[in-house]
Amino acid sequence: MVRLKRLAILGSTGSVGQSALAVVDQHTDKLEIVGLAAGSNVDRFSSQIVKYEPAVVSLGSRDALDELKRNGLPESIAAGCGDEGLIDVVTHPSVDLVLCASSGVTALSAVLAAIQAGKTIALANKEVLVMAGGLVMDLARRHSVSIIPVDSEHNAIHQCIDHRLPEEISQVTLTASGGPFREWTAERLETVTPMDALRHPTWSMGPKITVDSATLMNKGLEVIEAQWLFDMPPNQINVVIHPQSVVHSLVELRDGSVMAQLGVTDMKLPIQYAFSYPDRWETTLPSLSLTQCGTLTFHEPNYERFPCLRLAYQALRSGFGYPVVLNAANEVAVEAFLSERLPFRAISAVIEETLDAAVSNFVTSVNSLQEIRKLDHWAREYAATTLSGIKSK
Amino acid sequence: MVRLKRLAILGSTGSVGQSALAVVDQHTDKLEIVGLAAGSNVDRFSSQIVKYEPAVVSLGSRDALDELKRNGLPESIAAGCGDEGLIDVVTHPSVDLVLCASSGVTALSAVLAAIQAGKTIALANKEVLVMAGGLVMDLARRHSVSIIPVDSEHNAIHQCIDHRLPEEISQVTLTASGGPFREWTAERLETVTPMDALRHPTWSMGPKITVDSATLMNKGLEVIEAQWLFDMPPNQINVVIHPQSVVHSLVELRDGSVMAQLGVTDMKLPIQYAFSYPDRWETTLPSLSLTQCGTLTFHEPNYERFPCLRLAYQALRSGFGYPVVLNAANEVAVEAFLSERLPFRAISAVIEETLDAAVSNFVTSVNSLQEIRKLDHWAREYAATTLSGIKSK
Repeated sequence: MVRLKRLAILGSTGSVGQSALAVVDQHTDKLEIVGLAAGSNVDRFSSQIVKYEPAVVSLGSRDALDELKRNGLPESIAAGCGDEGLIDVVTHPSVDLVLCASSGVTALSAVLAAIQAGKTIALANKEVLVMAGGLVMDLARRHSVSIIPVDSEHNAIHQCIDHRLPEEISQVTLTASGGPFREWTAERLETVTPMDALRHPTWSMGPKITVDSATLMNKGLEVIEAQWLFDMPPNQINVVIHPQSVVHSLVELRDGSVMAQLGVTDMKLPIQYAFSYPDRWETTLPSLSLTQCGTLTFHEPNYERFPCLRLAYQALRSGFGYPVVLNAANEVAVEAFLSERLPFRAISAVIEETLDAAVSNFVTSVNSLQEIRKLDHWAREYAATTLSGIKSK
Repeated sequence: MVRLKRLAILGSTGSVGQSALAVVDQHTDKLEIVGLAAGSNVDRFSSQIVKYEPAVVSLGSRDALDELKRNGLPESIAAGCGDEGLIDVVTHPSVDLVLCASSGVTALSAVLAAIQAGKTIALANKEVLVMAGGLVMDLARRHSVSIIPVDSEHNAIHQCIDHRLPEEISQVTLTASGGPFREWTAERLETVTPMDALRHPTWSMGPKITVDSATLMNKGLEVIEAQWLFDMPPNQINVVIHPQSVVHSLVELRDGSVMAQLGVTDMKLPIQYAFSYPDRWETTLPSLSLTQCGTLTFHEPNYERFPCLRLAYQALRSGFGYPVVLNAANEVAVEAFLSERLPFRAISAVIEETLDAAVSNFVTSVNSLQEIRKLDHWAREYAATTLSGIKSK
């Protein structure tokens, strides 16, 4: 008899959240939804509530919650909103595992609360570790809580490392599709429009992460996450461009052997892995056919044409709050690019100026959520002020 | 403190044996040679004895042993020859692990004796499992003895399966370089000379195995071995042509995830893995660079142009002693090809005729080493008689 795993899903109406519910649908004998949380997509959230009958739900804002209640919500369901609502969802006593699939920093305090409550964390959110990796991993260690990455690259590394001891791992290599501009010259990169950037070769994702994939900042943020997840120094974390996205990532062991995880590009695979771990369950996904793939290619990332990856390594090596500054400046720059207030090539310039401006004794104080949020706020403000200056260059 | 592993190496003067001793040289704090056995290369064997000071040694024949003694052999070293000598080497009470790196069937009774004596087996010999997989694996189970494959493909699968339960594995895929004639047309294959066949693209090996690699029989024998090693039915064992030999093999798990082991093409890697298992030790080998590899390709094997692989699957599905017949007929045919008594394309015809001639109630009796040897003998005789008929076709 398999014991039912009881889940809370943060970001249930998003792309990863919906894939997670599809996994739940395939394993109703092993998985049960206890809590759901979403931002503002009240219609989709309502039908999820009807279908999964969770015990506790939360929405991003009071307005969204009011709308949900107007649509009709059974009295038996506890419903909240904002940070408090999220925390109620993840700390519900019946919850075993929290899938954090909401984007941005909103999930941060909920994840910390879930860890304190001893819940296993399946993590599909970049910001949580990029901004507060030290806090999160330290708390997880103290509460003996597992953090299982859902992001396909980190999930692959988790699969390759498996039960191995840290001293057996000599390096990890994250694969990157290289984005739509992989082969564009520096000159042509000057002309990139938001429309160009939103065409991702293999994965279908939201606009912010798709632009990050085009600048390789996405991979840079993943390098930062990998440091925290796998306790690896920056010089043991590599990035290799692999446009076919078939090899999801690789781990070199100390005897020179390289373990890789490959698979079809469907988020249901890493999500199910995180739900089933340490077990593995049957899938309805098609098998990967290497002969249908035919050719897999690998090349070094170009740090000249894609300076965001270089900046991410720089922030990681600088340590302390520099990754927070990197992430905040990147969000401001990408938003400006998407609303056509900043050219594509200037995204990295905004980040670089903001990193340079970060004053040492300010950026080194990141020992609490409050300090991190203060630094994040400062970096966003600073990055915004650089926009007009950089655009006119 | 690491406990010293004490080794017996069968076939110490061959290519795998020498690589094994190179691994021992790099890990003198963890490995010690207790026994060595070789065929007839007395000079090389003598210097190995001087260097490693084993307690017990054996050579292939009485003549070779006499020559060794004439060269001068310390009285403290027990020396024998033939089957008995081999058995003395592997069953020496100090031996923990036996590396079986001698080719052909000579090692078979020694391997069975080693298993009965409870020694861990590192297996770099195809015939042991192709001829007597049932006997060997059954005995190993009864004596709780691990058989760790050293052949790079099976070693890769062993690494990918690791501690996983059998029910977690949905299929295994052996990679094959495809041999030197991978892209040759059927017409051009008619013209293959022994010289052509002995040019292997990635691994440097002996003539017999190099021809087997050119006909894909090598992969066919590996499919048969995989059945025994990993307890998989034929329809869950795949072969994919991968000319770069970077991905050594792959395992699909039941959740659709595919684990692969990659590495540089150096036998020291799988040998060290077998010696260190379940631990892993440092290596002096260079790291695999995927970006230097650049491109990895994968395609289906062509069963029309390379009928030996089809015949191996056929023998495996037929079960019983058919793999014995396949292996014996192949050895006779390859020897005839190498001595220019048989065209390359006729190798498969010899095997097919011999398989067809194997009478059911004879080929199904393979419950003892004696019966297996009888069948092997019959198949060799039969295959030899087909040679002239097939050549003149």
